Amino acid sequence: MSLRYERLHRDAGTQARRGRLHTPHGTVETPVFMPVGTQATVKAIGQDDLRALGTEIILGNTYHLMLRPGPALVGALGGLHRFMAWDRAILTDSGGFQIYSLARSRKLTEEGASFQSHLDGSQWLLTPERSMQIQETLGADIIMAFDECAPSKAERPYLEESLARTTRWLHRCAAAWTRGSSALFGIVQGGLDLELRRRHLAEVCAVELPGYALGGYSVGERPEEMHASVAEVAPLLPEDRPRYLMGVGTPVDLVTAIGAGIDMFDCVLPTRCARNGLLFTTRGRLNMRNAVHARDERPPDAACHCYTCRTHSRAYLRHLFVADELLALRLATLHNLHHYLELMRGARAAIDADHFGAYAGRIREEESGRVPGGE
Amino acid sequence: MSLRYERLHRDAGTQARRGRLHTPHGTVETPVFMPVGTQATVKAIGQDDLRALGTEIILGNTYHLMLRPGPALVGALGGLHRFMAWDRAILTDSGGFQIYSLARSRKLTEEGASFQSHLDGSQWLLTPERSMQIQETLGADIIMAFDECAPSKAERPYLEESLARTTRWLHRCAAAWTRGSSALFGIVQGGLDLELRRRHLAEVCAVELPGYALGGYSVGERPEEMHASVAEVAPLLPEDRPRYLMGVGTPVDLVTAIGAGIDMFDCVLPTRCARNGLLFTTRGRLNMRNAVHARDERPPDAACHCYTCRTHSRAYLRHLFVADELLALRLATLHNLHHYLELMRGARAAIDADHFGAYAGRIREEESGRVPGGE
Repeated sequence: MSLRYERLHRDAGTQARRGRLHTPHGTVETPVFMPVGTQATVKAIGQDDLRALGTEIILGNTYHLMLRPGPALVGALGGLHRFMAWDRAILTDSGGFQIYSLARSRKLTEEGASFQSHLDGSQWLLTPERSMQIQETLGADIIMAFDECAPSKAERPYLEESLARTTRWLHRCAAAWTRGSSALFGIVQGGLDLELRRRHLAEVCAVELPGYALGGYSVGERPEEMHASVAEVAPLLPEDRPRYLMGVGTPVDLVTAIGAGIDMFDCVLPTRCARNGLLFTTRGRLNMRNAVHARDERPPDAACHCYTCRTHSRAYLRHLFVADELLALRLATLHNLHHYLELMRGARAAIDADHFGAYAGRIREEESGRVPGGE
Repeated sequence: MSLRYERLHRDAGTQARRGRLHTPHGTVETPVFMPVGTQATVKAIGQDDLRALGTEIILGNTYHLMLRPGPALVGALGGLHRFMAWDRAILTDSGGFQIYSLARSRKLTEEGASFQSHLDGSQWLLTPERSMQIQETLGADIIMAFDECAPSKAERPYLEESLARTTRWLHRCAAAWTRGSSALFGIVQGGLDLELRRRHLAEVCAVELPGYALGGYSVGERPEEMHASVAEVAPLLPEDRPRYLMGVGTPVDLVTAIGAGIDMFDCVLPTRCARNGLLFTTRGRLNMRNAVHARDERPPDAACHCYTCRTHSRAYLRHLFVADELLALRLATLHNLHHYLELMRGARAAIDADHFGAYAGRIREEESGRVPGGE
């Protein structure tokens, strides 16, 4: 197995884990946050920026890359790493989630998911086998099983049928998986129903795989519901495999899930918020379009060492956002990703020092904006 | 006088000049191309990028900065250099050209130009004195006289009246100019009429100033008309002062004007073209959206050493443009500005070596795409 998960330390007071993923494209220290590079680029920044931020792994979206530029083209050009000139690790999702959230006229059958492209209405069919084939052609270091992320409001009979099908699809994924240097992760679904979660987790983890993920969270439920469910479910995942909570979340979501034993995260939140002018800081959140910043010479976050905070004032960033200048998007994205990656560096150091619980508490305070000595 | 122009060498076969501008924010080797930073940012790239490109001076637009964020704000925050965190040289224009090209309901009187903002329709008045005051508040190292860039199709009586007024405005600018570390340049107008150009040049150069510019070119005339006129007019400018050809131009325009003795240029062409997917290369121009690039693994320009060409393929750039990804704009802008700055580095070396004529000929061949051994 080309992906090796090295367990380093468990926090004394929580279930938080320090670990290390050894991938064909370098080592990834966990817990880790993976910036989302939907279309073979993390929106608004370059691969030079990602490298300077210390990014060790990014996520690519199979649904988007399948439609454009297409796996055949990426494969012919040597795979996703070479296509986008990124020599560190890449994880691709299966395409299932975007079919659920973006595609039109989708129809699920036992075979797979047929849908219309959100770009041009063209007709597509994605199956477990095809998802494996595409992800292996893209050449990601970690690939995800093709699943259904059932609507959170679905009736229980539908959910049970969906989970059984996702399990059957997982067996088809595992059978179709051929590339050793693309490590396949299974995905546990089941919404907020703990009984269904536990049952599906047992089915998924019965398949021996390099890693396991929790899907179907952060799809509209309250954060407390997600936190409570993850706290119950995460510890049931195999101890000797990396655990990935898909599509999550806020800084508070991250430290809460790390405390439950999660190792990997991805989310569009820091990058999407950045493009909307919302910055995460150690003193809470800042809306850079706000007039209150117009003459503020301070950096967005005085405690932050990112390029943006080392170089520019709130006043300048506010001007760039108000004037619709492209540089605003890059500067804000650099800051938010730095904030997230720093959050994870801090989490790793706190686990190493056996005081992760206190660290998580400090992050909750920061996010609430109620920082002692704060503004 | 805080701006000192050092004459270094004159090309043996042309009127091309090597020189050096000593400004309060560093030395500028001439001939120089100044990237346009309209709203206190060069669109799509950062100040870190500008520095890495070797940029020694950029241009800011008084019209845009006056409307947003406003000179009072920039002044209160320590001036344009500090506001945008750019510690090298800055030149600001007078605002006159944008009033002519962008503003609504403009009306010229002896006092100045009244107009409505293109942003919100608000009413403004810009006068020679106000333009000086704004530019000095912004704190640019070089500031431009407030002039009228008369429509190229204007009747001769209107042109004569306009030029006489621009001369009177120049005297008012010189009288209102108080800040030693902002060097005032006069602007010669006169369209394509050589007699008017010569007469106005004599009037403008009668005012002792740190530098002089040619305005009113590249406003719709054929390139050959502009080249012929500049070739006549540029050599009449004082030899011991920097000579700036405003708003010009293509690579061929630049080498042609350098050969006539011009030292300074600015133009939105490389940055605007970049955002439209048009790249300048040593083998002619490339439209990156073209399907022919879809599977092309070569860099945009194999002879180019910019970050984009060192890192990425035409196929990847084409994908980014087709997918409307922000990174496309930065990568293309980096390349085009590198191409322009490299063009100027080559021009300076060629002048030093007394073979500028041959260099200009090679650039004309490159731009025509008819390069020996080319594609």
